[in-house]
Amino acid sequence: MAFDIVSSGIYLPKNRWSSEQMDAFLGLPVGTAKKRFGVAYRHVAGEMESAIDMGRMAVEDCLSRTEFSLSDIDLVIYASGTHHQSLPYDASALLAALDAPFGIESFDLNSTCLSFLTALDLSHSLFLAKRYQRILIVTSEVATGVTLNRSFPPQQETATLFADGAAAFLLEANEQSVGFIARRFETHHSGYKYCQIPGGGSFHNPHRISHDENLNLCRFFMDGKNLFRKVAQVLPTFLKAGLESVQLTPADIDYLLPHQASFRALAKMPKMTGFAAEQVINRFPTLGNQVAASIPINLHLLRQEPDTKGKSVLLMGSAAGLSLGMGLIYL
Amino acid sequence: MAFDIVSSGIYLPKNRWSSEQMDAFLGLPVGTAKKRFGVAYRHVAGEMESAIDMGRMAVEDCLSRTEFSLSDIDLVIYASGTHHQSLPYDASALLAALDAPFGIESFDLNSTCLSFLTALDLSHSLFLAKRYQRILIVTSEVATGVTLNRSFPPQQETATLFADGAAAFLLEANEQSVGFIARRFETHHSGYKYCQIPGGGSFHNPHRISHDENLNLCRFFMDGKNLFRKVAQVLPTFLKAGLESVQLTPADIDYLLPHQASFRALAKMPKMTGFAAEQVINRFPTLGNQVAASIPINLHLLRQEPDTKGKSVLLMGSAAGLSLGMGLIYL
Repeated sequence: MAFDIVSSGIYLPKNRWSSEQMDAFLGLPVGTAKKRFGVAYRHVAGEMESAIDMGRMAVEDCLSRTEFSLSDIDLVIYASGTHHQSLPYDASALLAALDAPFGIESFDLNSTCLSFLTALDLSHSLFLAKRYQRILIVTSEVATGVTLNRSFPPQQETATLFADGAAAFLLEANEQSVGFIARRFETHHSGYKYCQIPGGGSFHNPHRISHDENLNLCRFFMDGKNLFRKVAQVLPTFLKAGLESVQLTPADIDYLLPHQASFRALAKMPKMTGFAAEQVINRFPTLGNQVAASIPINLHLLRQEPDTKGKSVLLMGSAAGLSLGMGLIYL
Repeated sequence: MAFDIVSSGIYLPKNRWSSEQMDAFLGLPVGTAKKRFGVAYRHVAGEMESAIDMGRMAVEDCLSRTEFSLSDIDLVIYASGTHHQSLPYDASALLAALDAPFGIESFDLNSTCLSFLTALDLSHSLFLAKRYQRILIVTSEVATGVTLNRSFPPQQETATLFADGAAAFLLEANEQSVGFIARRFETHHSGYKYCQIPGGGSFHNPHRISHDENLNLCRFFMDGKNLFRKVAQVLPTFLKAGLESVQLTPADIDYLLPHQASFRALAKMPKMTGFAAEQVINRFPTLGNQVAASIPINLHLLRQEPDTKGKSVLLMGSAAGLSLGMGLIYL
């Protein structure tokens, strides 16, 4: 007993920043964001596009493509790396925004950029345990509120990296399906400090620090060089172990869909993984790094392409933490 | 195949506010916090007691009571209703603070006050699916940073309600054990607005609002009257359905351990549930409402009492969302 993907949907913010707008924002010569950071454009959430608004629209898109409705869903997992508000948990905000039938189970899950993969892995076990018939995973991220603001001089690398968006995946129990296999997850906390937003929680209580201190702590800090170095060090062994568990090699798999971490990381992916460049999904120029929404948004787009039904896709990524995750799914 | 509780541990902040200190803080006549709000004292986290510090100490307490060490643990679920910081996820901060062996899987789970119950329910399914041998659930809450500050005139009800603390539970797969049964969870989002901290996330971006506006949004808002009314309306039917699923009545069960929501809610528990007053665990005077840590801290203390081994405990609660959760476990 495992599961099938029954339907999926996404939402991308209407407003896009072109690479030229990004150049202007950063005070760089025209063409720099495109050439150095691989930006064609970035979707940036507006006033009426909160994480919950976007999540609701992704769910509506997902349900419009299937005969199922909200009343057929047993569990909603809100799997995101960013928080909408402190309390209550965001899944309940989403259910309220959807005006869903009462009684659906729900919780939030967070493993930063791997949140969707972790939710798929959990769902696989929940189907094996026969706990639910249908699970809806919703990932919605508003990241640009932190990286594209004028409180401090923007950092070129992080400003050009992130974009906003949401995805929803409806899964259904199926005895015949293999579900999510070659699943592997590891936490390497020696990389904890390389990627942080220190504020926004109980550790740096806004009631006890100054406004400037709070704004400084609510920024995105990244030591990109050491982060990339650490990932490059642990990823190949991790990937090899995961593939060996199902006795597969990159040549046996149709696509590698990595988390869209950065322009540079995606360029190095073939060398780091042994997958051919044409197997690697890379929509970084137009979609950027959408935190945990990157993998499901790209997976949804791959599902819409002709002749991808039944193809195998290895989902894989690294996340702030530092965590690694992977798993193979059939479209 | 389900699981046993192998060990548990807790951490309570060293500093306690007496009910008299609470009276003084609130400008009330001496004796009011005790008489009207049921306060003996409240544990309040200090500077060196962040949620991660407390979580680490609860894990150390838990592991000191067993032969197992961190290297025996396959998965850490950080199940809390409050966030330590925005990014990365808090389980990775905890693993870093513990200097845990690399490679342990981890994620955060949040269903506000029900987070520990949801984690137990998930763990039950993960053991049924034979995904892990040992799971560590850690719940750590610093709630008083929001309710006990001087940014705004404090509210009597919420100031006296909350306290801080952490708990850690080590679970191990066991084919012979029934694990966590009579499990039932429901989300009733019509109660979403009754309990909120609107700030601290992407919805109210501190970079785009004034300091005063941010502080106002980072407060705890509770419509206690309507919240209690809504819970009283849906809880009895919910509880009845859960107990019927295992063909048990309150008389068949040794203890009811409800979330320690409030003085008033606990007093009404026997009438609302059909359990006798002496079956209901109530440590509200000394422990208060510790968000998701209330249930595991009280469960740990019950495990330490003489002659409780093998006894049945119904864990049950309502949470901001509004969500209901329940499940039965044997000590």
